[in-house]
Amino acid sequence: MSVEWAFEGQRVPPWREQLTARALVVSFFLSVMFSVIVMKLNLTTGIIPSLNVAAGLLGFFFVKLWTKALEQTGLLRTPFTRQENTVIQTCVVAAYGLAFSGGFGSYLFGMSSKIAAKTTEEDTSQNIKEPSLGWMIAFMFVVSFIGLFSVVPLRKIMIIDYKLIYPSGTATAYLINGFHTLNGEKLAKKQVWMLGKCFIGSFFWGFFQWFYTAADGCGFASFPTLGLKAYENRFYFDFSATYVGVGMICPYLVNVSVLLGGILSWGIMWPLINNQKGHWYPADTPPSSLHGLNGYKVFIGIAIILGDGLYNFVKVLHRTIATFVAAARQGPSTLPVTDDDSPAPAIVSYDDEKRTQVFLKDQIPQWVAYGGYVSVAIISIITLPHIFPPLKWYFILVAYIFAPVLAFCNAYGCGLTDWSLASTYGKLAIFVIGAWAGAAHGGVLAGLAACGVMMNIVSTASDLMQDFKTGYLTLASPRSMFVSQIIGTAMGCVIAPSVFWLFFKAFKDIGEEGSQYPAPYATIYRNMAILGVDGFGSLPKHCLTLCFIFFAVAIMINLIKDLVSPKIARFIPIPMAMAIPFYIGSYFAIDMFVGSVILFIWEKINKPKADSFGPAVASGLICGDGIWTLPQAVLALAQVKPPICMKFLSRKMNDQVDTFISSLS
Amino acid sequence: MSVEWAFEGQRVPPWREQLTARALVVSFFLSVMFSVIVMKLNLTTGIIPSLNVAAGLLGFFFVKLWTKALEQTGLLRTPFTRQENTVIQTCVVAAYGLAFSGGFGSYLFGMSSKIAAKTTEEDTSQNIKEPSLGWMIAFMFVVSFIGLFSVVPLRKIMIIDYKLIYPSGTATAYLINGFHTLNGEKLAKKQVWMLGKCFIGSFFWGFFQWFYTAADGCGFASFPTLGLKAYENRFYFDFSATYVGVGMICPYLVNVSVLLGGILSWGIMWPLINNQKGHWYPADTPPSSLHGLNGYKVFIGIAIILGDGLYNFVKVLHRTIATFVAAARQGPSTLPVTDDDSPAPAIVSYDDEKRTQVFLKDQIPQWVAYGGYVSVAIISIITLPHIFPPLKWYFILVAYIFAPVLAFCNAYGCGLTDWSLASTYGKLAIFVIGAWAGAAHGGVLAGLAACGVMMNIVSTASDLMQDFKTGYLTLASPRSMFVSQIIGTAMGCVIAPSVFWLFFKAFKDIGEEGSQYPAPYATIYRNMAILGVDGFGSLPKHCLTLCFIFFAVAIMINLIKDLVSPKIARFIPIPMAMAIPFYIGSYFAIDMFVGSVILFIWEKINKPKADSFGPAVASGLICGDGIWTLPQAVLALAQVKPPICMKFLSRKMNDQVDTFISSLS
Repeated sequence: MSVEWAFEGQRVPPWREQLTARALVVSFFLSVMFSVIVMKLNLTTGIIPSLNVAAGLLGFFFVKLWTKALEQTGLLRTPFTRQENTVIQTCVVAAYGLAFSGGFGSYLFGMSSKIAAKTTEEDTSQNIKEPSLGWMIAFMFVVSFIGLFSVVPLRKIMIIDYKLIYPSGTATAYLINGFHTLNGEKLAKKQVWMLGKCFIGSFFWGFFQWFYTAADGCGFASFPTLGLKAYENRFYFDFSATYVGVGMICPYLVNVSVLLGGILSWGIMWPLINNQKGHWYPADTPPSSLHGLNGYKVFIGIAIILGDGLYNFVKVLHRTIATFVAAARQGPSTLPVTDDDSPAPAIVSYDDEKRTQVFLKDQIPQWVAYGGYVSVAIISIITLPHIFPPLKWYFILVAYIFAPVLAFCNAYGCGLTDWSLASTYGKLAIFVIGAWAGAAHGGVLAGLAACGVMMNIVSTASDLMQDFKTGYLTLASPRSMFVSQIIGTAMGCVIAPSVFWLFFKAFKDIGEEGSQYPAPYATIYRNMAILGVDGFGSLPKHCLTLCFIFFAVAIMINLIKDLVSPKIARFIPIPMAMAIPFYIGSYFAIDMFVGSVILFIWEKINKPKADSFGPAVASGLICGDGIWTLPQAVLALAQVKPPICMKFLSRKMNDQVDTFISSLS
Repeated sequence: MSVEWAFEGQRVPPWREQLTARALVVSFFLSVMFSVIVMKLNLTTGIIPSLNVAAGLLGFFFVKLWTKALEQTGLLRTPFTRQENTVIQTCVVAAYGLAFSGGFGSYLFGMSSKIAAKTTEEDTSQNIKEPSLGWMIAFMFVVSFIGLFSVVPLRKIMIIDYKLIYPSGTATAYLINGFHTLNGEKLAKKQVWMLGKCFIGSFFWGFFQWFYTAADGCGFASFPTLGLKAYENRFYFDFSATYVGVGMICPYLVNVSVLLGGILSWGIMWPLINNQKGHWYPADTPPSSLHGLNGYKVFIGIAIILGDGLYNFVKVLHRTIATFVAAARQGPSTLPVTDDDSPAPAIVSYDDEKRTQVFLKDQIPQWVAYGGYVSVAIISIITLPHIFPPLKWYFILVAYIFAPVLAFCNAYGCGLTDWSLASTYGKLAIFVIGAWAGAAHGGVLAGLAACGVMMNIVSTASDLMQDFKTGYLTLASPRSMFVSQIIGTAMGCVIAPSVFWLFFKAFKDIGEEGSQYPAPYATIYRNMAILGVDGFGSLPKHCLTLCFIFFAVAIMINLIKDLVSPKIARFIPIPMAMAIPFYIGSYFAIDMFVGSVILFIWEKINKPKADSFGPAVASGLICGDGIWTLPQAVLALAQVKPPICMKFLSRKMNDQVDTFISSLS
C-alpha cells in the first residue's frame, strides 16, 4: 500500500542537486510554450484550463529524453529524479501562471484605450493606461513576488496540519511518482498501469468530445443530463473526466458540501431572487451585470468564503500566538519556529512520516518569508502609484494588509475543491478600491490596478500550494521548490508581458468584437470597474444584508463544527466548499458527486482494491484530460475547428429548426 | 459452468403439464397488450422492436404473482416451471407477431382506397381491397399457420445441427433460466446477479436515451460517432445496448462478416454506384425508389441471401435424401424420422447433452408437418383468389413452392445475426408476383397479397425459431411449444385484425400524412407494388447482372468453405451475414463489432470469467433494452413525447441555425 516503499532504495538528493541546469533550461522552454497557449486562450475565450499536469509530464519527457541520450554516450552524471521533475513542474507553473494572473486578457488590457472606447463611460485619460512593454514588466516584477512570500507561512498549515487534498497537485504527484517507479514493486507497477489506462481513456474521451464542440453550447459539456430546466440553472453532468477524478480524490464531505451549496444557491436562492426581478433590481439589467442577479451570486459567495476563511485564519493565528506565548514563558531556548500545536497525528503511515520529515527538513526561514513580504510590499507601495497615478499608496497598503487573509481563503478553498477563485477576489478588489477611490479620482483605473495586485497574490497562493502538495508527495525539498518558484516567477515576469506584446503588435484588431482575439474579459472587467466606482449603494437590494447573514452563518457553522464531537462534525458541511458553486454553477458539483458515487460503490464492492487503485484512477482521469488541453490548444492555434455541433434543443425549438433547415435546401 | 447442474434436482414436467390453463390465460392478455403496442407502432413509424424478452419477463411476473398468491392459501398444485414460462413466451410471440406480419401498417393497409388515393397511379377498383374485419380474419387464418408447419422440419437443422445462436432467443432463455434458478448454486446466482445489473443498466440507458429523441435524427441513435461523412453512409456506433449484447453472443466470424459486408456495401459499392447517378438510373429518382440506388441495395442483398440460403438448403436436402436412401437400403425398421448425418458432435457438454435429449424426445411427427403444410397450402390456393381476385391460384402455388427456401434463408440469417429480413422477402414477392400478374390484371393487389403470403411464412420462421432456441435452452418440450404456437397463432388471427379494426374505426384520419397515425409503410409498400408491375425491365441498369454475380459469389464462398480444411474455413466470412447490412446500413454491424471487442478484451484479461459471465452480460444488455420498449410504447400511446432533441449539425449548418435561433428571440 505504501508508495515510498517503492522508492526505498533511492536516496533523496539534497536540495541543491534537485535544481539542475537542465531542469531550468527545460523549464524556460516550457514556460514560453505554455505562456503562448495561455495568452491565446486569454484573448479568445478567457477560459484557462489548469496546465500543471502537462507541465509535469512534458518536463519528464524532455529531461528523460536528454538523460537517456547522455546515458547512451556514458556522459550522464546526475540521474533524473522525481524531485527534479517536481522542480521543473513548479517552475513552469510559476512562470505561465503569470500569463493568466497578469491580466493580459482581463484587468490589464481593460485599462487600454481600445477597451475604454468600447465601454464609452469613464473613458477619460485618467482612467486609461496604454499597454507598453516597459511598465508591464516593471508591474509584474513588483506584484508577482509578494504572492510567493505569502505562501511560505501557509505551506505547513495547509499541507501538514489541515492535510488538504489539492486534487490536481495530488494527481500530478501520482503521475510523477508513477514515472519514476517503473522498476519498483508489483503494486506500484499495477497502479501505474491503472493510471496509464485511465489516462489514455480520459485523453481520448477529451479528444472524442472535441469533435462535437463546433460552437458555444455544443458538445458533452453542454449536455442537459438532468433536463433542460435543470440545465438552465446549471444543474447537469458535463462529462468532465477532470472533475469526476477530483471527486474521487476529495473526501465525501467536500463533495456533498459542494453539491449542497449548488442546490442551495442555483436550486433555491437564485430562482427565488430571480422572481424579485423588477423589485429588488431593475428587470432590464444585462445578465452579466453586478447590479442584477450576478451581484448576489458574486458577493454572497465571497461573503461565505471570507467568513469561513477568516474563521480559520483567526484560529491558526490564535494557536500560533498561544504556542508562542507558552514557549516564551518556558524559556527562549525552546522557542519554536513554527506552531506545533497542530492536531495530534492519528495513525501516521510510513508514507506520511517520511514525507512530513522531508517536508519539514529544508525549511525556508520564517524571516525570509515575512521580511520578503514586507520589503516587496514597501517597494510596491512606492512604485505602483507612479505607474497608476489614481492608485494611492494607502490603497496598496490596505490591500497588502488584507491580502494574506484572502490568499489563505483561496489556498484553503482550492485545497478542498481544486477551484481557484482568484478572479473572484480580483472582482472584490475592483469593487472595493474602485468605490473607495470614486469616480472623480480615476476609480476605474485604481480598481483595475488593485485587481492586479490582489489577483497575483491570491492566484499564486493556490497555484503554488498545489505545487507544494506535489512536492510533499514526491519528497521534493521545499527549499529547492521555493528557489525554483522564484526563478519561475522571474522568468514569467519577462515572458508573459513579452508574449502579450507580441500578440498586441502582431494582431491589430485585438480586443475588437468579432475579431480573432476579442479578449471578452477585458471588457467585462472594465465594466465591473465602472460599476464599482458607484460604490456599495449600487449593489442590488438586500444584497449587502444577505452577504452579512451568510458571512455570519459561515462563521457559525465553523464554530459549531469545532464545538461538537468529531463524530457529528463530520456530517456538517464545509461552508467554503458550499460557496464555490454559488457563482460557477452546479455542474462541476455533479461531476464531483459522480466521482464520489463511483468510489463509494467501488469501496462497497472491494474496499482494499478501491483504496489501492482509487487515487491512480482519479489521477489518470485528471491527467489525461489535462494533457488533452495541449493538443486542443495547438488545434486552436492552428485554426482547426471541430467539425460537428452536438446541440440540445427543446422539442418545440427543434421543430422550428427542422423547418428552417428543410427550407434551406 | 453448467446451467443444467443448477436444475439437477428439478424434474422436467411432461409436455402436457407445461401447457397449463393459467399460462394460456396470461398469454391471451399479454397477446392483446402487445398487439395494441405493435399496431400503434405499425401505424405511426412502422418500426417494430422485438418484444420476445418482454413476453418472457411479463409471463414470469404474472404467473409468479398468481402462484405466489395460491401458495399463500395453500391451493397451489402445479409449481411454476421455466418450461411453462417458455410456453407462455412462445404463445405470446406467435400471437403478437401477426400484428406485424399481418401487414396492417404495410401491405394490407396499402390495399385500401385511402392509400390508393395518395399514390394516384393504378388506383382502379381491381387494385383496391377495403379493410373489413371478416375477410381480414379469414385471410389471417389461411396464411398464418403455414409458417408454423414450415418451421417444424427446420427446427432440428437450425438448432442441433447448425448450432445457430439466435441471440434474442438465447438471451430470453438466460433470463428465464435465471428467474427459476434463484435457489440454485453459487455460480448461477452470481450470473443472475450479473444479468440483473446489466439488465438494469441497459434499461436505464434506454430510458436516458429516450429523453433526447424528440424527433427524427435526434438522440444517441443518430450519433455521428465516426464523423458526419461516415454517418451519411450509415457508419456509426448507435449506442444500442441490444446490438452490443448481440455482438457478445454471436461468434467473432459472424460479427466480422457483418462488418465486412457493411464496408463492402456502404463503404465501397453504394458510393461507386451513386457516382453513376444519371448514367445507370435517372438522377431524379427519389431516394426510397427501387428504380434508383435503393434497387441495388435491396436486390443485391437478396441475391446474396438467396445464394447462401439455397446452397445450405440443397446441402441439407442432399444429406437428408442420402441418409434416407442409405437407411432404406438397410431395411425399413431403422428408417430415421430425421436425418442424423449431422456434423459429428465435438465435445458434448453436460448441458448440450441434456438439452439435445429433451429437444429430441417429444418430436412432432414429420407427417404432421408436411401434411399440415400441404393441406393449409391447398386451402390457401382455393380460398385466397376469392378474397383477392387478381391473385391467381398458380401465383400462390409458386409462392408456396419457394416459400420453404426463403423461410430457411430467413431462419438461418436470423440465427446468425438476430435480424429478421421478413419485410425484404415480402418486397421480393411484391416485385416478382406484381411483375408476373402485370398492370392489366390487377398486379398491384396481387403483389401486395403475395407479399402477405410470403411475409407470414418467412417472419414466422424466424420468430418461432428464436422461441425454439429458448425452448432448447430451458428444456421446454418441442411438442408443448408447438401446441402453444398453434394456440397463439389462432389467438393472433383474431386479435390482430380486431385491434386494427378498432384503430381504423376509432381514428378517422388514419393513414393521412401529418396525422397521428400516418402509417408510412402502407404508402411505401403500395408504391413498390406499383413499380413492380413494370417488371424487371424497370430495375436500374446492371442491377440484375450484379445480382447474378453476387448470387454466384455467395454459392462459391460456401463451396470453398466446405472444401477447404476447417482451420482455414473459420477465417472465410459468411455471405448471409455479410448481406444483412447491405440494405440496413452498418451501424448495427459496428454495435456488434463493439460487442466482439469487449468480449475479446475480457477474454484476454480473464478467460474463465468472460466465459462464465459473458452470456449473462450480453443477455442483460439485450433484455434490459427489450423491456424498455414497453414503457416507451406506453409513453407513445399516452402521447408523452421526449422533451429534448440531441441534434448533430455540421459547423457550417450550426452557424446558420444559431443565427436563426437568435433571430427568433
